[in-house]
Amino acid sequence: MPTISKKGKLMPASPIRKLVPFAEQAIKAGKHIYHLNIGQPDIKTPEVALQAVKDNTIEILSYSRSEGSEAYRIKLAKYYAKHGIDVSHEDIIVTTGASEALLFLFSSIMDPEDEVIISEPFYANYIAFSTATGVNVVPAICNIDDNFALPSVETFEKLISPKTKAILICNPGNPTGALYSKEEIHQLAELALKHDLFLVADEVYREFIYDGESHYSILQEKGIEQHAVMIDSVSKRYSMCGARVGCLVSKNTTVMQTVLKFAQARLSPPSYAQIASEAALDTPQSYFDNVINEYLERRNTLIEALKKIDGVKVAVPKGAFYCIAELPIKNSDDFAQWLLESFDIDGETIMVAPAGGFYSTPGVGLNQIRIAYVLNKESLLKAVNILKEALKVYPN
Amino acid sequence: MPTISKKGKLMPASPIRKLVPFAEQAIKAGKHIYHLNIGQPDIKTPEVALQAVKDNTIEILSYSRSEGSEAYRIKLAKYYAKHGIDVSHEDIIVTTGASEALLFLFSSIMDPEDEVIISEPFYANYIAFSTATGVNVVPAICNIDDNFALPSVETFEKLISPKTKAILICNPGNPTGALYSKEEIHQLAELALKHDLFLVADEVYREFIYDGESHYSILQEKGIEQHAVMIDSVSKRYSMCGARVGCLVSKNTTVMQTVLKFAQARLSPPSYAQIASEAALDTPQSYFDNVINEYLERRNTLIEALKKIDGVKVAVPKGAFYCIAELPIKNSDDFAQWLLESFDIDGETIMVAPAGGFYSTPGVGLNQIRIAYVLNKESLLKAVNILKEALKVYPN
Repeated sequence: MPTISKKGKLMPASPIRKLVPFAEQAIKAGKHIYHLNIGQPDIKTPEVALQAVKDNTIEILSYSRSEGSEAYRIKLAKYYAKHGIDVSHEDIIVTTGASEALLFLFSSIMDPEDEVIISEPFYANYIAFSTATGVNVVPAICNIDDNFALPSVETFEKLISPKTKAILICNPGNPTGALYSKEEIHQLAELALKHDLFLVADEVYREFIYDGESHYSILQEKGIEQHAVMIDSVSKRYSMCGARVGCLVSKNTTVMQTVLKFAQARLSPPSYAQIASEAALDTPQSYFDNVINEYLERRNTLIEALKKIDGVKVAVPKGAFYCIAELPIKNSDDFAQWLLESFDIDGETIMVAPAGGFYSTPGVGLNQIRIAYVLNKESLLKAVNILKEALKVYPN
Repeated sequence: MPTISKKGKLMPASPIRKLVPFAEQAIKAGKHIYHLNIGQPDIKTPEVALQAVKDNTIEILSYSRSEGSEAYRIKLAKYYAKHGIDVSHEDIIVTTGASEALLFLFSSIMDPEDEVIISEPFYANYIAFSTATGVNVVPAICNIDDNFALPSVETFEKLISPKTKAILICNPGNPTGALYSKEEIHQLAELALKHDLFLVADEVYREFIYDGESHYSILQEKGIEQHAVMIDSVSKRYSMCGARVGCLVSKNTTVMQTVLKFAQARLSPPSYAQIASEAALDTPQSYFDNVINEYLERRNTLIEALKKIDGVKVAVPKGAFYCIAELPIKNSDDFAQWLLESFDIDGETIMVAPAGGFYSTPGVGLNQIRIAYVLNKESLLKAVNILKEALKVYPN
């Protein structure tokens, strides 16, 4: 039998995926599962987006432009202007999800063995995109006791080697909910300039900011136009994860022309989803107000309840809809599996994301889990109660 | 300014893309262009597919499964059964177009510097997927005088090196329209077995076969289940290029598990497009009968007209909807540009695809163009007349 590639062997399987058979087994056994493990919001997609797809008059479902429909990009540039980000539609390439944007970017700016510094813990698939492109991840480790604040510029600078091509941050962060300040972004920008590195920010959670704080995009930072690349997506903003529409935004025309070549090779982003995404830009502010308020209440409910559990430590998220909780356990992979296999309260249990997959550093984060607060408050309270009772009896 | 990657520099720009500014200029100047250059059919998408999207009842546009919706894959397996291909839904991974399927497959079975043998001329983006993954293309050159028949097994065997991991064919072929026989597939299969190589077939034009011939899939060949991977797409079959739904089909579970890891990293294929694709499987046979008949008449019209032009040589396509024509010119890139810039009949001109982009061998195919017969007969005749008159006055 012919062998698969080394790269294919190295590709990480989704850390959550390993739990799926146990979840399926639990469901078969009649258990109800509270899913705290996924970033799939239960929030309804804006009606204006759904209706636009229903009202489409397509007769031939043809390719769109490789860089995405011009009408959508023009409207998207206006959306960014409202957020203080001054870009033209020519600075935008529409991609099939933020995933594709990151993959194209990694391919465009890094060769195998090049290095990208990423604030850790980070979105697990950053490892996958790095593995797929042969790029090495160098983690800048954040700490739960510090509420996962961005490491100091000195820490970042020590990690820079001749192989370093980029620094990647997720702001606000998945899985931590950390929000980086204007000053922190400014310092990173200075560092990127000093060492001539790309500064890449995944800003897909831009809308989800709490406690009166505001979001500062790397594209608002002056002087790093040739170094800054922003990654975005409609998935979370409009609860449209299934659309698969993201984008890559940069004023560096060499980067854009290179990314475009990768985009041309896959022809175009999905057409129906671009209709939905363009229409979604007309979503009324009241939708966001309601959604942010709902997430804020959920966050407060969740964090308050978690803090009451003996031995549980939790970082308070300032944005996005995740938190990392440290538990009085040794291995959260085992714990997550045990919850599905062996624990329930009145037939109900929880599924959590073991945090090990969000760290590239071996052995770190093994006593942590990520909780996505994408369930209503009542469900969150029930779920946290299950966690609390489970920890009392878990054979650590 | 930070530099882009070597890979990014090597990525080929779309050969047609270079002509776009000249086409835009021609349109601005008031010219009408007959587009012979693209594989975007003018055929209407089946009503059943369009309607299913309009009738969708989605409230939360959520992720689908990374491997594609189970309902769609089950129905797709039944479609394959009707075509004599015995696969289960577990042998299918739904991808964002055939492009993504090829990219995932290349990443899963080949590392940088590995080699894939491809019958040449081939779909230009095979070069892009190879460049993106660092894989080297070894061409098995086909000849227009031979109607682009598959090279002999001996020819293929001579091209095999210790670095060879796969043989890739497109059947029926883009850009040649060549159709490979059961015997030819059988011989390639034996060769793949003998040298323990993957045999990959891009079969996206399966439905478009003329002259009473029939299609023989590599998945119908017994004994190569662990070596065979088939690539497919809804784009051409249902004139749904904008859906971006393809798939990868194989009984090799190691390959499938590896491809799934790449698929998980990008989360899921587009949801609306999967609704359209699933519904499209109910397209009545009459739709295909009409479409195939239309393409057959177009092909006959086109080939007959081309053969009448002095100095033009053309291979008769047995499938797909392209043909390669050899012209009495030196460089078809220049010729294609000249057609847009400097030639018209009553304000009408043509846009063709220079064939150089379909060859990896330098200098080959420079006097050839690819013509896609995706226009109606009347337009095709006008377009060929423009070609004929243009050749009379072209300052070669």
